[in-house]
This record gives sequence, C-alpha cells and structure tokens, in this order.
Amino acid sequence: MKTVKTFHELHDALEKMERPLGYVPTMGYLHEGHLSLVQEAKRNNRSVAVSIFTNPTQFSPEEDLDNYPTDLERDLALLGKEKTDLVWLPSAEDMYPDDFQTWVEVDQLTKLLEGRFRPTHFRGVSTVVAKLFNALQPDRAYFGQKDAQQAAVIKQMVRDLNYRLEIVICPIIREPDGLAMSSRNSYLDPQERKAALCLSRGLEAARQAFLVGERSADRLREVVRTEIEAEKLARLQYVSCAHPLSLEELNDSIEDCLLSLAVYVGKTRLIDNIQLSGRIEKS
Amino acid sequence: MKTVKTFHELHDALEKMERPLGYVPTMGYLHEGHLSLVQEAKRNNRSVAVSIFTNPTQFSPEEDLDNYPTDLERDLALLGKEKTDLVWLPSAEDMYPDDFQTWVEVDQLTKLLEGRFRPTHFRGVSTVVAKLFNALQPDRAYFGQKDAQQAAVIKQMVRDLNYRLEIVICPIIREPDGLAMSSRNSYLDPQERKAALCLSRGLEAARQAFLVGERSADRLREVVRTEIEAEKLARLQYVSCAHPLSLEELNDSIEDCLLSLAVYVGKTRLIDNIQLSGRIEKS
Repeated sequence: MKTVKTFHELHDALEKMERPLGYVPTMGYLHEGHLSLVQEAKRNNRSVAVSIFTNPTQFSPEEDLDNYPTDLERDLALLGKEKTDLVWLPSAEDMYPDDFQTWVEVDQLTKLLEGRFRPTHFRGVSTVVAKLFNALQPDRAYFGQKDAQQAAVIKQMVRDLNYRLEIVICPIIREPDGLAMSSRNSYLDPQERKAALCLSRGLEAARQAFLVGERSADRLREVVRTEIEAEKLARLQYVSCAHPLSLEELNDSIEDCLLSLAVYVGKTRLIDNIQLSGRIEKS
Repeated sequence: MKTVKTFHELHDALEKMERPLGYVPTMGYLHEGHLSLVQEAKRNNRSVAVSIFTNPTQFSPEEDLDNYPTDLERDLALLGKEKTDLVWLPSAEDMYPDDFQTWVEVDQLTKLLEGRFRPTHFRGVSTVVAKLFNALQPDRAYFGQKDAQQAAVIKQMVRDLNYRLEIVICPIIREPDGLAMSSRNSYLDPQERKAALCLSRGLEAARQAFLVGERSADRLREVVRTEIEAEKLARLQYVSCAHPLSLEELNDSIEDCLLSLAVYVGKTRLIDNIQLSGRIEKS
C-alpha cells in the first residue's frame, strides 16, 4: 500500500496504477461502513485509491471540525488489511491555498433536508469532491447510502458537469443493534449510545407500518417522530418523507420514498435513513 | 477530421485519439484568432480537438445570444484545413438538460472588470469550461489573450479545482489595421468598423506613453479614455489599468499592468487589452 501526500506524489503514483481505478473518498476515522466501500471497489476495479481528508469547507464555524475524530495509524492499518493500493492524505494547505476562490454548487437538491440546517455544507462537499475527482480521475467512486442526500447531490453534480466516472452508492452498514455506523458515534457516552438507537427504531417502525400498507407520508413521519420523542436524551431536528430522486417532501399517498431524519443525542447530531418502495421491498 | 455530437460519440472518438490531446473550446464563427489557437495546439500535442458551442449560460437575457453569428460549414472547412483531428458539436439540450442545477463559480476575479457589467457571465463560462474539460479530459487547453479576464478566471479555476491539464494563453490576433479579431466584429457596419479602431488606437497610445516613462495608472487610463471619447460612434463602458494577476485596479505608479477596456460601437460591445511591463516590454 502506497501512501502519498502532495499532488505531485499523487500524480506520480497514479501513472503506475492499473485501470479501472476505484476510489473511496473519506474523512478518516474509518469504520466498517467505509471498509465496505473499499471492499466493493476492490471487487470491481483493478486498483483502489482511498483519500483521507477532513474537509474544512463542509463544516460551518459552529460545527465540529476541530473535534472531528482522527486516528490515522488505525485507518492505515485497516486500509492495509483491505489491500488498498493507494492512500492519499492531502493537506488543507494544498487543498485550499490562500487565494482559493472557486466553488461548485448544486442548486436545488442542496436546499432541502440537511441543506435547510447546514446551508453551506453541500457547497463544501461538492467542491471538495470535484477537486478530488479532478486530481484522481477515477473510473468509479464509492459513497455510502448513510449520507443519502450527499449521494444524490454528488450524482447530480457528476451528471451536470459531465464527469466521466460512475458513482456507486453502497448500503448503510449498521451495528448489531441497528445504529448506523458513523465516525460521529464516537462522541456518544454510554447513555447516549443507547439513546441513539431511537433513530433506527423510528425508521424500522415506519418500515413495518409501510409493509402492512401505510402509504400516508404524514403518518410515516409521525411514526418516526413518536419514537424519537419517547427518548429523553434525543431531540428531533427533522424527519422527512421525500421523493427518492428530487428529495421534495411528499404529502399524500406515496409509492417510493426516502425516509430520513436528523436527531441531536446530547450534543451529537446523528442522521439516518431508509428507502421504502411499494414496488420492490427494500430493507 | 472526425465530427461528433453526442457525449457517447465523443467518448468513443476520444478513446482512439493519441495523447497528449490539445483542446480549443470555441463558440464558432471562427477567425484567425481561433485558428492561431488550433495551430499552437497542433504544434505541441499528438491530437487536437475543437468544440463549437455557443454557450447560452454565459449570455444574460438582454445580450446577443440569439444573434450570435454562426457559419458551421465555413468553420468546419477552416478546421479541416488546419488538420484538426476532432470537432465536437454538443447540443444545448445535451449540455443543459431540464434538471441541470450545478454551477462552478470563481468568486473574486469575476467581480471585477467585465464582471461588473456582466454579473452572470463568468459563472456561465467557468461552468461550461468545467463541463467541456470533464467530458474531453484534455492535456492542454488553449485560450486567447483577447479575453484576458476569462483567461485569468479559467487559470484560477483549473488551479483551485485541481484539473490535471495545462492552460495555454495565446496572443491577440489583430486585423492589419489593429482591430482585435472577434466574432462580434461581424456586427459592425462600415462606419462602425472604422470607429472600432479607437480601441486599439487608445491602447497603443497608452503603450507609447508607458514606453517613454508614464507610470501613473490614472494617466494611462486617461490616455485611453481620450482616444475613445474622440470617436463619435463609440461609448466607453470602462477602461482599467489593473494588476495582471489579481485584476485589482491600480492607483499609483505601476510596473506591470493589464490595460483593458470595453466600448460600445453603435450597439456592438467590443473589448480589447494590452499587457504593459516595465521589466520586459511586451507589445
């Protein structure tokens, strides 16, 4: 496994890599969710590159950039085990020099859901992903369904800007008790960790209701809300039942939807989601 | 010379092209300025691609998109003579489908000069150029110094977004009498064509003043302004004496500068510029 830092080192390393190249962008502090992306990339490409970069421009000043967990040594050990070919560790100084002034913005999709509460977040995401794609020129890039809106935004950006690569979205990986894996789970104390189960419990309750025929977007949101409100340490920020592509909120009877939510558990903001389809049941 | 339209045809054609690939993006109605870019690309690359696309997003509603001159047959004949390998003719429908919503914006550089009078212009330029670069993945791309600010904006975008290609800026090509070549010169009637010489005359007068020691930005602007105001059919929109990289207006004694202006001659808006350097004289 080769590790590079500068653009120059990266370009040198890329010239020697076999195509197709699969790519997994991460912010580090890797968990099984990330590793599932690396494994999927290994299965379908001749080489696999992973970047670890805690991108400052997708955090607002009041968010947790400074506290974002890191453990580079552990990350590299995990990536080594997965036989990752290349790990790129760009520096913030190289990525955002002083006169940096170019932004990639996806207009509509980013105004909804997460974007209502994190208005500059997706501008940071789409900009850094465009930069990473340009620097690496991968053939496929892998993202998790956990960040469902991010996946939709990146797919839209790739389509709109004519990137010549395939975006592969992989399923959410959950802890045995149902909690969606997230680097931010490390912020939770034991009580909060237990309380955090209300997210997956709420989604599962809604899925059960959907399976026995509930098709009202309002009532599905209500099922989730009830579960969160029953948990004292949790505070619901939003619950959404939205069109899976446009992300527009649904109001009446639904067929397919993305059911998603953001919840504060103590000071930690967690998100989770589930896709429901009346045509093919997904779990 | 191969001509393609769809992205699919483009990608097929690109696979057969030898690298390095030089690329000249144009809006068509080609003149010797464009052809000088193709010639420069031929000299330094194994293959050369040209696109012809009158990009709607860089025109504001009150601008001349609908009247922009076209002569595809002539353009293709000219490109054939230059032994262009590939001509790409994307359609507006393919480039901007109905749900298109992603923009590339360069922040600071685009607020100045042209950007003050054409506030959405450079967003359209940077977005379409990013799209064209992503679709073609050239090794070098060629632009004319005639659009000096556009050249600066694209260089900034390429740096900021980590595009792996080289931007080559080629000198302004002028008519024998000094008028900078432009597709928009075709709008001028014979009287206006004569009046349009005030732009190059103004710049040349300033260059002469600079050569004999004038170093006041104010007085250099004044020299240009005087020439334009002496021409009845011309109306000066702006004259700028700016830092060649930041494009910030200079106030006091200067060493290097970009002297540029926009002038309405009748209803036709023309731009021109000259670079002045106290260190190495450029003409």
